[in-house]
Amino acid sequence: MIVLGVDPGISTTGYGVVAQADDRRSSLLECGVIRTSPDSPLPERLREIFEGVREVVVRHQPVVAAVEGVFYGRNVRTTVVLGHARAAVLLAASLGDVPIAEYAPAEIKNAVAGTGRATKDQMQYMVQQLLRLRTPPRPADAADGVAVALCHLSAFRVPKRSALAPSR
Amino acid sequence: MIVLGVDPGISTTGYGVVAQADDRRSSLLECGVIRTSPDSPLPERLREIFEGVREVVVRHQPVVAAVEGVFYGRNVRTTVVLGHARAAVLLAASLGDVPIAEYAPAEIKNAVAGTGRATKDQMQYMVQQLLRLRTPPRPADAADGVAVALCHLSAFRVPKRSALAPSR
Repeated sequence: MIVLGVDPGISTTGYGVVAQADDRRSSLLECGVIRTSPDSPLPERLREIFEGVREVVVRHQPVVAAVEGVFYGRNVRTTVVLGHARAAVLLAASLGDVPIAEYAPAEIKNAVAGTGRATKDQMQYMVQQLLRLRTPPRPADAADGVAVALCHLSAFRVPKRSALAPSR
Repeated sequence: MIVLGVDPGISTTGYGVVAQADDRRSSLLECGVIRTSPDSPLPERLREIFEGVREVVVRHQPVVAAVEGVFYGRNVRTTVVLGHARAAVLLAASLGDVPIAEYAPAEIKNAVAGTGRATKDQMQYMVQQLLRLRTPPRPADAADGVAVALCHLSAFRVPKRSALAPSR
């Protein structure tokens, strides 16, 4: 079972591809980041995110794409731009016929590090431990994507189809 | 010169395709709405919006896609979901190699009806007048897309590449 995890961002989208064997041991197949330039217009940046995720989908044919939900506490404009980036990720998976599971940020931290308030360092350490890696995933933002995949794979989890229910 | 105008929405995306002749007279080639079901998961709705816009792009090969920007005054969650819908529209145009121009809602009202505070009825009336239609475009939400195209075509307008500048 191959799971793609993605942490969307307009500047940096982290992703990780994790395989789980029948004995429930997980191993990291690939991780990385899709970076876009702040000098590019928004539609171009969305296209780069979309195409980056699509390439990973084609390469690994995951059975599910686990995608981090929107955290609403930030600046509204930042949140809306993040929503655009997230939509590019969802579309790349959806058009590749990959089912999508969405998880809230705190849910991912809780599943991977045991607390919804885990720091970035703690998350990287746990990702390294759970996948028996010699070093934490590099670049650091890639670990955020790997964590979403691990969240999906954590036992007894019931994936939500959409954590971001439209309000109209 | 064929211009596609789009007013994105997660439930209803209105669009209009307007041709401008060398004498600057505009005529309506097509207008309509892309509706998605509130019962569908978000990725599925984004896919329907994306594919709906893509079909119009393929059919008319516009030289530009004019897309309404985000109005930030609403509920944050609604705005974020709107951002997702908007991204689906931007991606459909961008992947079709159609350049994108973005206009703020008040800018569109001002260009079409002469005031940034025009009502929906006033906008429909002006769209009907400007395109010499016997009746206002139907369904009503289609007129919103037509208005965006007319905004782009209005004289002396300098299109902005991105009205929604990312804040990081």
